[in-house]
Amino acid sequence: MVIIMEKGTSESLIERIIEKLDKDGFDIHRSTGVDHTILGVIGNTSRLDVRDLQLMQGVADAYRITAPYKLVSREFKSHDTTFKIKDVEFGGSETVVMAGPCSIESKEQITRIAEKVAKSGAKVLRGGAFKPRTSPYSFQGLGEEGLQYMREAADKFNLVMITEVMDKEQIALVEEYTDIIQVGARNMQNFTFIRALGKSKKPIFLKRGIAATIEEWLMSAEYILSGGNQNVIFCERGIRTFETYTRNTMDISAIPIVQKLSHLPVFADPSHGTGIRNKVIPMARAAVAAGAHGLMVEVHDQPDKAVSDGAQSLYPDQFEELMNQIRVIANVIGRKVAESK
Amino acid sequence: MVIIMEKGTSESLIERIIEKLDKDGFDIHRSTGVDHTILGVIGNTSRLDVRDLQLMQGVADAYRITAPYKLVSREFKSHDTTFKIKDVEFGGSETVVMAGPCSIESKEQITRIAEKVAKSGAKVLRGGAFKPRTSPYSFQGLGEEGLQYMREAADKFNLVMITEVMDKEQIALVEEYTDIIQVGARNMQNFTFIRALGKSKKPIFLKRGIAATIEEWLMSAEYILSGGNQNVIFCERGIRTFETYTRNTMDISAIPIVQKLSHLPVFADPSHGTGIRNKVIPMARAAVAAGAHGLMVEVHDQPDKAVSDGAQSLYPDQFEELMNQIRVIANVIGRKVAESK
Amino acid sequence: MVIIMEKGTSESLIERIIEKLDKDGFDIHRSTGVDHTILGVIGNTSRLDVRDLQLMQGVADAYRITAPYKLVSREFKSHDTTFKIKDVEFGGSETVVMAGPCSIESKEQITRIAEKVAKSGAKVLRGGAFKPRTSPYSFQGLGEEGLQYMREAADKFNLVMITEVMDKEQIALVEEYTDIIQVGARNMQNFTFIRALGKSKKPIFLKRGIAATIEEWLMSAEYILSGGNQNVIFCERGIRTFETYTRNTMDISAIPIVQKLSHLPVFADPSHGTGIRNKVIPMARAAVAAGAHGLMVEVHDQPDKAVSDGAQSLYPDQFEELMNQIRVIANVIGRKVAESK
Amino acid sequence: MVIIMEKGTSESLIERIIEKLDKDGFDIHRSTGVDHTILGVIGNTSRLDVRDLQLMQGVADAYRITAPYKLVSREFKSHDTTFKIKDVEFGGSETVVMAGPCSIESKEQITRIAEKVAKSGAKVLRGGAFKPRTSPYSFQGLGEEGLQYMREAADKFNLVMITEVMDKEQIALVEEYTDIIQVGARNMQNFTFIRALGKSKKPIFLKRGIAATIEEWLMSAEYILSGGNQNVIFCERGIRTFETYTRNTMDISAIPIVQKLSHLPVFADPSHGTGIRNKVIPMARAAVAAGAHGLMVEVHDQPDKAVSDGAQSLYPDQFEELMNQIRVIANVIGRKVAESK
Repeated sequence: MVIIMEKGTSESLIERIIEKLDKDGFDIHRSTGVDHTILGVIGNTSRLDVRDLQLMQGVADAYRITAPYKLVSREFKSHDTTFKIKDVEFGGSETVVMAGPCSIESKEQITRIAEKVAKSGAKVLRGGAFKPRTSPYSFQGLGEEGLQYMREAADKFNLVMITEVMDKEQIALVEEYTDIIQVGARNMQNFTFIRALGKSKKPIFLKRGIAATIEEWLMSAEYILSGGNQNVIFCERGIRTFETYTRNTMDISAIPIVQKLSHLPVFADPSHGTGIRNKVIPMARAAVAAGAHGLMVEVHDQPDKAVSDGAQSLYPDQFEELMNQIRVIANVIGRKVAESK
Repeated sequence: MVIIMEKGTSESLIERIIEKLDKDGFDIHRSTGVDHTILGVIGNTSRLDVRDLQLMQGVADAYRITAPYKLVSREFKSHDTTFKIKDVEFGGSETVVMAGPCSIESKEQITRIAEKVAKSGAKVLRGGAFKPRTSPYSFQGLGEEGLQYMREAADKFNLVMITEVMDKEQIALVEEYTDIIQVGARNMQNFTFIRALGKSKKPIFLKRGIAATIEEWLMSAEYILSGGNQNVIFCERGIRTFETYTRNTMDISAIPIVQKLSHLPVFADPSHGTGIRNKVIPMARAAVAAGAHGLMVEVHDQPDKAVSDGAQSLYPDQFEELMNQIRVIANVIGRKVAESK
Repeated sequence: MVIIMEKGTSESLIERIIEKLDKDGFDIHRSTGVDHTILGVIGNTSRLDVRDLQLMQGVADAYRITAPYKLVSREFKSHDTTFKIKDVEFGGSETVVMAGPCSIESKEQITRIAEKVAKSGAKVLRGGAFKPRTSPYSFQGLGEEGLQYMREAADKFNLVMITEVMDKEQIALVEEYTDIIQVGARNMQNFTFIRALGKSKKPIFLKRGIAATIEEWLMSAEYILSGGNQNVIFCERGIRTFETYTRNTMDISAIPIVQKLSHLPVFADPSHGTGIRNKVIPMARAAVAAGAHGLMVEVHDQPDKAVSDGAQSLYPDQFEELMNQIRVIANVIGRKVAESK
Repeated sequence: MVIIMEKGTSESLIERIIEKLDKDGFDIHRSTGVDHTILGVIGNTSRLDVRDLQLMQGVADAYRITAPYKLVSREFKSHDTTFKIKDVEFGGSETVVMAGPCSIESKEQITRIAEKVAKSGAKVLRGGAFKPRTSPYSFQGLGEEGLQYMREAADKFNLVMITEVMDKEQIALVEEYTDIIQVGARNMQNFTFIRALGKSKKPIFLKRGIAATIEEWLMSAEYILSGGNQNVIFCERGIRTFETYTRNTMDISAIPIVQKLSHLPVFADPSHGTGIRNKVIPMARAAVAAGAHGLMVEVHDQPDKAVSDGAQSLYPDQFEELMNQIRVIANVIGRKVAESK
């Protein structure tokens, strides 16, 4: 932590602050300039609230000079984290594509779609079994029955399975079926929940909250890693801005930024990032071009009949075309995308 | 729902859309203009996703013409909702002030502060027993022990008690102690949680999410009311904007807006809304001047020793001064604030 | 400027940076901590781009420790700036109200409205003669003819006159008529324009850009003061956020913040801040309660016939009621509002 | 325009609104539903302020059903606008790259950089001669002298020239030198200025304001087209959001959206969009992958010596590598990038 004293602060005031911090167990390095005296605070400053220091008499400003997160940082671990599920490597040289419907609607539906996305080169099957929605009057999901259908469909076409868990009590149940646990944007800062995920043996797919800064996003992952679960995948899915043409504004720049700050994989979800089918494809290409480790894309063979988010789901042939395009783009930055079958 | 067809759409396309909606059980009112044909869709349109209609061939745009919420709206209930706890009326002509520390730190601390705020005219004691924080390395709260201290302090000084519940499993425990259940901004769209609160007998104090639109905020209250709990209090506590001087930007205009759209009480929390002590007082005055039904303010007698949010807590004498000021301001709009003792 | 070196940076790297800054004429204060070496850079750092330093090899981060503005700051001038036009004092103990129509439509219209607002206690007449609009197809204003009508109306009722100048070439013309020059939100960072205003003898009413941070707003005023014009009035009029219910979100907290950072007066414009008539009154009360030195309010006696912004204009009787309310509120914080006649 | 009447509005109220609109010269199509009566307003509704209608007694809501812009829209002109300068086609199948320094610093500097970027395949030379900055204390540009150096450099290497014009009076001067006139983000809504550009014979490069919605951006172009200048190029350069890690958040999704709404070319400026050198390359790739018609990139051979924005300028070899990458990416969507020499 660095504390900047106001121009012409009295020596006694400076002394008082040094004493207080010293009493709290910090080492102080003082540097006296012409205008400003600067105090470097050394020690476990994560206990300090910057605002408390800023409000002290004589203090002009105060800054934290070390990131509040540790385990997720490149400073802590310089090389990329990679892990395998079945034969799929995450965080490595392959651009992994997760695809499937927003909601699991029936055994037939999830099986049909699983076959199609597997054919196009997707390695992971996505789909939701629990769907609490903004409106209490909308479809709320098939529950465990949906998880069973999805597991069978994933196994049948040799796909890794990912599905969302809505709260703590669901974790145990969903873990019995899924390979990867998805945390929705709204739960990114539900700390009692993400703390519990730190104890899970399954990798966590952590979506960015629509109002979360990159630092807050990394702090949420810090919760999970500090709990013992080292396999977290970040997923950018759009932030809330003043622009209302799209449901959210996808922050593509978050991809290279997080890759610089952290060793964990970074994916992108252009379906929720845009909310409009004909924008999903260009944004998916953009995310891969920006260096994403993977994509999560909604695919539905009858979007107009989908019980949720049909408007942002790709038709299987659109998905096939997208896969062909990103195979070339991934190559440009030394990544590869699985071939179609 | 209203659907605007594109300029010069073929009759057959229009027919196809009318047929589809008719098959889905909606009545269609068609109005043919010079440039545009407009379709009025009558029925339970909450089942429809506007974006699906917008993507249909020939459709220029589509709008929902009825608010997605019902029970919370003025259309459903025109007069203000009021309810009493002990002798304190919420939503009525009194501007109710809730005050206390951010976290309950000890029996002595909560008792000392309860006495002081009661003296100044506060009617409700606030304080947190569970404190999951952005950082996994910060103080996490006293838990049930804290709830006991707080209940005793509230009763001793005849104050109503409000405290935050972090998740579903805590509800039953906290209900044994508190009079009002507080839902934090981060949980405003945690739907499994707020649905559970619809079954609670205690009034719910629903803070606005930092990225929540007013409509989303009302939808969350709709969850609670549709579950059977009619007593919800809205609380504006700041939204996230590009301005970083304050932690959040308090949206004072949300107070009159929500009062126009809904019959439920609207409070404001200037402490979290600004995050800086010397901004809390002017913003508290502003909220009362704008017509808030009440305030939630953090007060601590030793802010510099507070384990959390000390920087935004008022000193008891500052709080006393604030109460004196808002007594005059509330009067201007026909409200009153309790006298000091 | 403070530079934080990365953990374990080599001595040679640190030396290289010290040398470079030394060559550029800065004094360096070095403080070597356990983890981090901190360099304090002393000198005219306004020449440095923080990002250049942040990109240097071995640098973890860099911060500017002095505000980029000087003349507008409290550090430069601790007591409030006040100035008089006719008998009206700005920045002092009176809460000054500016009122009038959005656009000057005719001699009769501006005279009628001037009489009404003067009766209610307004001290300044507002109105626009030039109205370039978002749409090239809307009314564009009466021009000089309008300025003449407005000057006559202001003089007739002993009101100070304020009107907006759209660009450099208009300054000389408008100066012949007006007492205060208004700079619109869109021109706040039109630097060739505001630089020219530094040479004007008239006080400048500087509206905040809808995407301007408080620091950028102060920097724009710095342009004007550095040009020689010391009389600038800040005006908060709403910032752009994700909330679309109101046209802009009025940042009431900017009022106490700017008053802390600067010695110049701070006004608020609730008409543009909300864009909806029935929200103007509560927001005007809120601004006064937060400590604003004055208000700018749109008043029209036939809002439904107004050629522009009728929807946000108050009826004269609403304005009269508002004035009565803020007289009481201003009192609470030791200010006064002129009586009605 | 569509007007939705409130549930159970009296027939007389509906009649009154119909009469008023009829008197104003609009045709009304009425459709009476079970709950709501809907009025379709036909005519030149650009004269109406939606908010005025929304405030009328009995009106639940009102919507504009036609975009406020005409000439820039796909409805007005369905096929892409393309135009040539020298041998360079804009808006066509080539992804055109504009490159050069932020500021023209000397004849040698602009000539050196022009040669380098031309070698790598850039077709347009960018550079600023007038640099009013946020701070009145920074470098302000070489002026006309800089324009001469730049014109010579562009001709020497057969490059098209683009430079920014800051205000109306500069137009005539700059037109003597440049091929394309750049309008900065801060001037996007400086209407007296952009109206004047409608009379220019030079194509206009219109950057998006950092707080401008896509609709407002298109409206600004409408000003230029309605003035007679049909050649406008849009340029996305980042919008202001709550995320402060990057200077702005580049809205990549604006590229496909504007291409759908308008027939005019859309470029992207990743240098200002990110403000950090090591983020420029991934974002430039992303923009091309999303379908941009071109890029504007800052290149400097001595960024650390640059008088402005050095931190976001690419080194010539980084630029060369970027060009190689986007050649492959552009191909994926059927575009091509000029070869290096």
